[in-house]
Amino acid sequence: MLHDALYPRLIIALLFIPLAAVKQRDTSKTWGGRFSEATDAFVESFTESISFDKRLYHFDIVGSIAHAEMLCKVGILAADERDAIVQGLQQIEAEIDSSQFEWSTQLEDVHMNIEARLVELIGETGKKLHTARSRNDQVATDIRLWLRHEVSAIDELMSALLSALVDKAETCADTIMPGFTHLQIAQPVTFGHHLLAWFEMLIRDRDRLRDCCRRLDQSPLGTAALAGTGFPIDREFTAAKLGFSDVTRNSLDSVSDRDFAIEFVAVAALTMVHLSRWCEELVLWSSDAFRFVSLPDALCTGSSIMPQKKNPDVPELIRGKSGRVIGDLNALLILMKGQPLAYNRDNQEDKKPLFDAVDSLQGSLLGVRSLIEQLKPNIERMHAAAAEGFSTATDLADWLVAKGVPFRDAHETVGNVVAFAESKKQRLNELTLKELQEFEPKITAEVFDVLTVEGSVASRAHIGGTAPSAVRREIKHARDRI
Amino acid sequence: MLHDALYPRLIIALLFIPLAAVKQRDTSKTWGGRFSEATDAFVESFTESISFDKRLYHFDIVGSIAHAEMLCKVGILAADERDAIVQGLQQIEAEIDSSQFEWSTQLEDVHMNIEARLVELIGETGKKLHTARSRNDQVATDIRLWLRHEVSAIDELMSALLSALVDKAETCADTIMPGFTHLQIAQPVTFGHHLLAWFEMLIRDRDRLRDCCRRLDQSPLGTAALAGTGFPIDREFTAAKLGFSDVTRNSLDSVSDRDFAIEFVAVAALTMVHLSRWCEELVLWSSDAFRFVSLPDALCTGSSIMPQKKNPDVPELIRGKSGRVIGDLNALLILMKGQPLAYNRDNQEDKKPLFDAVDSLQGSLLGVRSLIEQLKPNIERMHAAAAEGFSTATDLADWLVAKGVPFRDAHETVGNVVAFAESKKQRLNELTLKELQEFEPKITAEVFDVLTVEGSVASRAHIGGTAPSAVRREIKHARDRI
Amino acid sequence: MLHDALYPRLIIALLFIPLAAVKQRDTSKTWGGRFSEATDAFVESFTESISFDKRLYHFDIVGSIAHAEMLCKVGILAADERDAIVQGLQQIEAEIDSSQFEWSTQLEDVHMNIEARLVELIGETGKKLHTARSRNDQVATDIRLWLRHEVSAIDELMSALLSALVDKAETCADTIMPGFTHLQIAQPVTFGHHLLAWFEMLIRDRDRLRDCCRRLDQSPLGTAALAGTGFPIDREFTAAKLGFSDVTRNSLDSVSDRDFAIEFVAVAALTMVHLSRWCEELVLWSSDAFRFVSLPDALCTGSSIMPQKKNPDVPELIRGKSGRVIGDLNALLILMKGQPLAYNRDNQEDKKPLFDAVDSLQGSLLGVRSLIEQLKPNIERMHAAAAEGFSTATDLADWLVAKGVPFRDAHETVGNVVAFAESKKQRLNELTLKELQEFEPKITAEVFDVLTVEGSVASRAHIGGTAPSAVRREIKHARDRI
Amino acid sequence: MLHDALYPRLIIALLFIPLAAVKQRDTSKTWGGRFSEATDAFVESFTESISFDKRLYHFDIVGSIAHAEMLCKVGILAADERDAIVQGLQQIEAEIDSSQFEWSTQLEDVHMNIEARLVELIGETGKKLHTARSRNDQVATDIRLWLRHEVSAIDELMSALLSALVDKAETCADTIMPGFTHLQIAQPVTFGHHLLAWFEMLIRDRDRLRDCCRRLDQSPLGTAALAGTGFPIDREFTAAKLGFSDVTRNSLDSVSDRDFAIEFVAVAALTMVHLSRWCEELVLWSSDAFRFVSLPDALCTGSSIMPQKKNPDVPELIRGKSGRVIGDLNALLILMKGQPLAYNRDNQEDKKPLFDAVDSLQGSLLGVRSLIEQLKPNIERMHAAAAEGFSTATDLADWLVAKGVPFRDAHETVGNVVAFAESKKQRLNELTLKELQEFEPKITAEVFDVLTVEGSVASRAHIGGTAPSAVRREIKHARDRI
Repeated sequence: MLHDALYPRLIIALLFIPLAAVKQRDTSKTWGGRFSEATDAFVESFTESISFDKRLYHFDIVGSIAHAEMLCKVGILAADERDAIVQGLQQIEAEIDSSQFEWSTQLEDVHMNIEARLVELIGETGKKLHTARSRNDQVATDIRLWLRHEVSAIDELMSALLSALVDKAETCADTIMPGFTHLQIAQPVTFGHHLLAWFEMLIRDRDRLRDCCRRLDQSPLGTAALAGTGFPIDREFTAAKLGFSDVTRNSLDSVSDRDFAIEFVAVAALTMVHLSRWCEELVLWSSDAFRFVSLPDALCTGSSIMPQKKNPDVPELIRGKSGRVIGDLNALLILMKGQPLAYNRDNQEDKKPLFDAVDSLQGSLLGVRSLIEQLKPNIERMHAAAAEGFSTATDLADWLVAKGVPFRDAHETVGNVVAFAESKKQRLNELTLKELQEFEPKITAEVFDVLTVEGSVASRAHIGGTAPSAVRREIKHARDRI
Repeated sequence: MLHDALYPRLIIALLFIPLAAVKQRDTSKTWGGRFSEATDAFVESFTESISFDKRLYHFDIVGSIAHAEMLCKVGILAADERDAIVQGLQQIEAEIDSSQFEWSTQLEDVHMNIEARLVELIGETGKKLHTARSRNDQVATDIRLWLRHEVSAIDELMSALLSALVDKAETCADTIMPGFTHLQIAQPVTFGHHLLAWFEMLIRDRDRLRDCCRRLDQSPLGTAALAGTGFPIDREFTAAKLGFSDVTRNSLDSVSDRDFAIEFVAVAALTMVHLSRWCEELVLWSSDAFRFVSLPDALCTGSSIMPQKKNPDVPELIRGKSGRVIGDLNALLILMKGQPLAYNRDNQEDKKPLFDAVDSLQGSLLGVRSLIEQLKPNIERMHAAAAEGFSTATDLADWLVAKGVPFRDAHETVGNVVAFAESKKQRLNELTLKELQEFEPKITAEVFDVLTVEGSVASRAHIGGTAPSAVRREIKHARDRI
Repeated sequence: MLHDALYPRLIIALLFIPLAAVKQRDTSKTWGGRFSEATDAFVESFTESISFDKRLYHFDIVGSIAHAEMLCKVGILAADERDAIVQGLQQIEAEIDSSQFEWSTQLEDVHMNIEARLVELIGETGKKLHTARSRNDQVATDIRLWLRHEVSAIDELMSALLSALVDKAETCADTIMPGFTHLQIAQPVTFGHHLLAWFEMLIRDRDRLRDCCRRLDQSPLGTAALAGTGFPIDREFTAAKLGFSDVTRNSLDSVSDRDFAIEFVAVAALTMVHLSRWCEELVLWSSDAFRFVSLPDALCTGSSIMPQKKNPDVPELIRGKSGRVIGDLNALLILMKGQPLAYNRDNQEDKKPLFDAVDSLQGSLLGVRSLIEQLKPNIERMHAAAAEGFSTATDLADWLVAKGVPFRDAHETVGNVVAFAESKKQRLNELTLKELQEFEPKITAEVFDVLTVEGSVASRAHIGGTAPSAVRREIKHARDRI
Repeated sequence: MLHDALYPRLIIALLFIPLAAVKQRDTSKTWGGRFSEATDAFVESFTESISFDKRLYHFDIVGSIAHAEMLCKVGILAADERDAIVQGLQQIEAEIDSSQFEWSTQLEDVHMNIEARLVELIGETGKKLHTARSRNDQVATDIRLWLRHEVSAIDELMSALLSALVDKAETCADTIMPGFTHLQIAQPVTFGHHLLAWFEMLIRDRDRLRDCCRRLDQSPLGTAALAGTGFPIDREFTAAKLGFSDVTRNSLDSVSDRDFAIEFVAVAALTMVHLSRWCEELVLWSSDAFRFVSLPDALCTGSSIMPQKKNPDVPELIRGKSGRVIGDLNALLILMKGQPLAYNRDNQEDKKPLFDAVDSLQGSLLGVRSLIEQLKPNIERMHAAAAEGFSTATDLADWLVAKGVPFRDAHETVGNVVAFAESKKQRLNELTLKELQEFEPKITAEVFDVLTVEGSVASRAHIGGTAPSAVRREIKHARDRI
């Protein structure tokens, strides 16, 4: 029978065999001195984190080396003990780097796997490494070190994307396209100006990322399980060794705090919202209806049944991933909301959302950068669209206002002119002067200067305006800000 | 330098080498007839799904076999072609089952991996399998088959847990504990009654799951890419072969619909909220402050630094996982909200949240079942707590009402009695009749019957009440409902 | 100075005056018998719910009347007491209906406001109403009654919208438009078929709503504060009076359960996702780039500065509201996740998200119905677009397959044909037979039948296919399902 | 019949009357020049925002005054026109302040209500105010001004709460309580130290708020509908008048950007998570099981049926509100994700979540401050609990390590000591030296110094440690940071 065939063995076992009978004695766990019962297979697989937290191994080792050096400095370890530990840890890192390390689920997590191997390698001295610390401050240190590293990569990815945006904006500073409100053609703008709107979103994201990084950049090492330790440790020494700019100020907070993860994922979620919006625009603009841009083949795929299709896969995947990063943010907020002080095992669940947000964001930033660099604007098509939809109606209204017509009256007059032009199936600049003057006698032939898309765009030359001159000025300014 | 050491090579490459230069010709892709440019390494890794969708392989093969049989029935495949395909697919399944299958990222997803191997095994005939279908209806069919299977397992896990709750409620039908509102002791209840409150939550969850399953149980196979197909297919034949109770009614909807996934994850999220709340109660009740229950050692762990600790790890992990399932629900809602009809590549992102919700829920149901089965109530401690906090004050008020005192007046009187008892540091049933009569002359010696926790509990014997007699009645009823 | 000018007085007061000093004695609260300190103004405004829960007044009164009748039936109230209470409550309802009732924030909530007025109107007897119940089961009953009423209205709104969809699908059963995947033109479909895809989504929503309503339709009245009551109540009597189909089975669960609210908002969120997707399509289709449909003026607005614009405001607002309903779902899930059994004050926060979801959904269903009824398809424009993009390429491939070419080979051949046609800037049906035969000698003149959009569409006549004949068949079936 | 009785008239009307028939001509709308059909009642109520955006009136007027002054400075308005406008606006503000202003739903929003009244008051000149701006940049300016004002109030509320925490920590610097991990008693800490953990969370929140405020503090005024304006405006002039520190740099971004709202609500959500966690602890600690603190009566309420209860309502409501603010964050992220550039009507939906987050956060900060200021620790109870659960086991292990026992061995030894003491139902410091030496001969009488909670706490005196001396040092430092 179909359903039975696949039935996960673990579940079958646990459904039909009373759980109490599944126990098997196991006294090998590092915290096993006390328990009279042992954990069973289910619990081992349900509680292990080694399958995902081994990703932190480099930073776990770096943190342990700094801790060992500090223990030696304050007299808890002898110099030869420190050296043995450091060499042991370096060997372990080499083993992991070259995939020769054997990870054990029974040893639960990355910390215990590495420590157990250290004792194997260097003997009793290895057991001294954990003096004056706890897994609680150890893992808090590891995640901060790891995330700081990833954030630094993201910062560079963002900067590269910002550069790509400015470069593309420069080549498109004069390219006229329709500006939309409500997805209706509203007024002509330049494509360079549109690209700089994306620039503004992303540079805010990078600014937020840097603020986040500042708060992240503090060492929790030495706060031990929750209360600090009675050993004469030197927290500032390890912080300096690890490149942290400061130490955290409260042990209860330090071992339980995941604000930095939440703040990072909040930044990531908003950045993904921005990237999703751009990708949505690229999907639209590369559609048959718009044809404003052509996307690089390398970032699209074909269809298994419709050979003519060129599907914008990368933009669609980025749009799709953005929802998941918002989900990650929720997961972390809800995770932390549910916990009393100080450390609880719930915290183990912080890693999957955090890792997913980092991976999704890095990949998406790379993808968008490729899209920006390689997209080709269809200049004629954009220009033609910009001229549709009476896009210079506002310019006509403003021209009237400049001639002394109150704004609201000018607005109403232009509404009537548009209705008239629409009924004649003509553009505004195709109406005759006489026809225009029937709506408002103040109109003169000069008006035709502002009824072209070029005239409209050029007139908006103030800070933040869409005129090519304003765009070029901003590009220069933008280069300074990257 | 630390940060550089680990820098992902892919990111370095893409940061410093212009993307346009990375291209390499690759015409091996199945949709490769048209493109003049090829996908690069980044896109391959960003867009592949084989690393996670291979989990669907069994259902992909089952679906393909049903499809091949239908193609033969309607005359599109010859009988020997069908047989070759079926045998080829069975061989592939055996290869995958025994881990001898070589998955290729270049072949993108589970569907193309299997089809490519089929062509390798049986030659040209293998290329005929995809007639009259598309990956769009194929993957929709796979996910529905897979999810139906998992939902069936979850249904059994829920039923087993419901049984465990009823069994435990039966042994605890007379066990008196405090009932809480605002986490303040309010009135005495029975522990069996409390366990039946959990029963009610979970049986609603199972009811919702079954409603979800009913909507899930429809075959989208045959709706092809989006519009159906011109081949004379028989959708009801494949639906019956695959055990679906019906076919879907609209092709555009069928290929894009993921409502079933959203509905399932909504059910999972609410179930996880319930499980999280119970686990939170178990954490509380097993704490030093409460000591109402003792949790099985097998579901707890020790501390690496505090050897005396017995940490409720499994309950904490379940509490932690509940946030992630809510995150998964958000991810899917946002994913689907962003898409126009019909299929878009975004849909590939449906799998990770769905898989995670299934895994988290299954593990948590198992974990909670073990907790319920093995927890040991501390009967004395519960009873003693139930007698604290003037928990029978309501009974006194109700007794007065039964004697004709209007409810609001009785309530005020009892408030004064409580304040008096508090000042004397006595319980209500420790006050003398004379003392009580000073507050309300209608009080007689009979009142002491309702001031004990046993009397209080026994009096609430209506449907849904906490009296042992009512609980036993409900247990019988509950067994019929499982 | 700007910032100071507006400074909320309450906040100023509380920032600069020690809170402990703000106290004022107030013994008028109904639960005030015990406290030696009184609540201050801040707490009153922070904890009151009357500003929003008065919306429940009708159902609070209906529930109280049923409760009073039950109390009389079981002998707790005399007949004349019952009559006085019922008349008093009816008078109060009339006062509220005619806006003559004076709501008091000091009386906290709708329940206490009504009860206080009842005592004012009928004296001591009014104080007996609250016998054998608590605000906990009272408010649970009120919300269920209210929500059942609103759900019934939503069911009718959905049914009316389903009818509107079928009616419009019937008039558009032959209207050909492009079917999209990845927002690229994929294959021709009929507009009627597209509308029926929306029909399928919404009828699933209605089905889910009815499942939700079934679980909602149970009476919690009589479960009192948390444990039931010692009075000889008849819960089935009140349930029947209030039109509930059953009573709830566990008092601890009954007073704390808000699953029905979560399930309803989950249904509402998914429905809003569907409505948002349709609205997004309407925004797209009414844009200058598509011009597939024209939306009714009454559901659009103009621009304050661009007189020519016709902005799709109603679709945009519905799209915008969908996010808020997803937010409401999160709010409720998180709200309930954080609570131990049984009732906690947190539950007061369930109303705002629930009310918002009901209002947003009802308004949006109305709005979409208007949009569907009044939108005018631009038949020529849709047809022209359907013929673009080599939309019948799949039909050519399928034609080859039917002639014996293996699917994957046919697919590759068609890819080459498309590339050739593209280079000649011709459609597939504009190529000559000779040109086609150069790619595949098996091609005959019959092939041109399937290369038109009409031929393509007509051939997909199976269940769920896009052929006009299939659409008409489904419409008939759909009418039976509404 | 119950259900019909209440049926909203609007819904009845729209269900049974074809919508197309409901139209009524209405040409009074400001953008009404063009439409041949008029909006109906439903659309008016569905699209209006005046019911909530009138809250912005002060800032709308302030912004308009600055705009008018700029128009005069650059020569678009004459000085007397400017004066008339400014006086008119000031009169309108006075009317609104004194509740004499008549808001009209027909005029849609706060901007049009005020402008219409201005024209009423000062005639034609009033129509000139809207020159060179649009509602798009106007509302963006209003929200930024409003939010900056509220953020400033929140900053002060946070600072006051930070002070309250430090003051309370100072009085509790020596108060010993149990430190928890997994809600199990782990090690003794000081209550002052625990309060400083909360301090750290909140000061990070305030730091994030200030970063947010920095990005918020930029003027979008002058970016008009989406592209800027052709009038010779001076954006830096208005920015300076309104106290903004800079102008925004891109018009398309300026009119559509709501990042500042999302960032603010993300900060609010995380702050609410912190406040919810503290409130959860207060609920726990004030429960009968813990009795660590007693909460002020003024922030609790009684029960309508259980007169003895003192329910922690304010903490529970804050816990409940935290979920809603997370919901608000989702609502805004999803709202913005769904929109193409530039302005869309969806944006109107930004206000309700933003207003709700501001109100919830302000109220909660006030509530928590009252709780902190007035809670009374139960010093004896805390101390007794701290001594339970072998809370100094870690100290024993550390003492052994200091004597040269490797950490992991010391840990195992202490596990055995604890098991022995547990079996004897004694505390660690109640064991005899001889008993201890049987586990480890290195133990001497000095060990008893570290087995008391006072000794344990005092030894953790490094930065971030729980020793009273360290706490006092931090308090001093904390005062500098507020």
